[in-house]
Amino acid sequence: MKLLEDRILTDGHVIGKGILKVDSFLTHQVDYELMDQIGKRFAKHYENSGITKVVTIEASGIVPAIYTAQALGVPMIFAKKAKNITMNEGVLTAEVFSFTKQVKSTVSIASKFLNPDDVVLVIDDFLAHGQAAKGLLNIIGQTGASVAGVGIVIEKSFQDGRQLLEDLGVPVTSLARIKAFENGKVIFKEADI
Amino acid sequence: MKLLEDRILTDGHVIGKGILKVDSFLTHQVDYELMDQIGKRFAKHYENSGITKVVTIEASGIVPAIYTAQALGVPMIFAKKAKNITMNEGVLTAEVFSFTKQVKSTVSIASKFLNPDDVVLVIDDFLAHGQAAKGLLNIIGQTGASVAGVGIVIEKSFQDGRQLLEDLGVPVTSLARIKAFENGKVIFKEADI
Repeated sequence: MKLLEDRILTDGHVIGKGILKVDSFLTHQVDYELMDQIGKRFAKHYENSGITKVVTIEASGIVPAIYTAQALGVPMIFAKKAKNITMNEGVLTAEVFSFTKQVKSTVSIASKFLNPDDVVLVIDDFLAHGQAAKGLLNIIGQTGASVAGVGIVIEKSFQDGRQLLEDLGVPVTSLARIKAFENGKVIFKEADI
Repeated sequence: MKLLEDRILTDGHVIGKGILKVDSFLTHQVDYELMDQIGKRFAKHYENSGITKVVTIEASGIVPAIYTAQALGVPMIFAKKAKNITMNEGVLTAEVFSFTKQVKSTVSIASKFLNPDDVVLVIDDFLAHGQAAKGLLNIIGQTGASVAGVGIVIEKSFQDGRQLLEDLGVPVTSLARIKAFENGKVIFKEADI
């Protein structure tokens, strides 16, 4: 998605060897116009897939996910990273290790919001090692719902997340695919859509 | 906001003495249509306040905040509940105690996204003891930006959060105000807008 790639080149910052900071439009301050376009792009790609729910994980996936859900006309569910006292019965969980934060956390979804008739589109902001998406697929699998695909805003294609998800039989659709960081600059490979 | 009050009566669940669960349309599964209406309502109320940024806190505040930001035509910033390695320089923090989760956490915003010229509208999903909003006001105050108001989706008016914020000189605008829970039912008082 050229609009997104251009924005990454303009406003993204490469830190160290493998971190791309996009906190001015995606992960901290959020540009609703770009996110709305992103949602519409995912929705167009999956418009004939019979999607009934969009699922993401808190927190940076929430905005691209809600605009995708809006464009598809379906509810959005965001998985939680820790249980709280208002959410204890009928909760499905999976363990996720975050390489960015170097912590293991438990992600959870209330089972009542997904059933075997659901066709889910998973949306997330980043795909690197694929641990968050794998955790979501695990939880969704427990409900009997099927997954039509995983839509990613920014994929680090030099890491193994995409292969991990494809090995699980799930198609991945990334709007921007980063081949490498060279001398602090972002080098893209061709995006999926 | 009658649409919201009706939805709370239809789909909200009162648990124990003081917890309202609205996980089917706000805090876990999210109804984009209702959230879009909520965003437009906040925006209409604050349309002449010169708002330049909408600020919320992850995670359940994000959707009402982004729709409010969209309706006002300004960026949205969500405060983070924990620092991570991509966010370390120029970070402003405040400590927040969550009565719901019974944990103290550090909320943070990168200082570069707010400056003394900014006029901020704070949006959050719930107002109970006001600790999260107070933490946001603390951080925003550190940047020199001013706060035009705090917009709340659901206020528990029998708790002390609203008074706390008004004592800090900040107007509070709540779309639904809960006077009490009686025999597991929600009793409203008149909402602000």
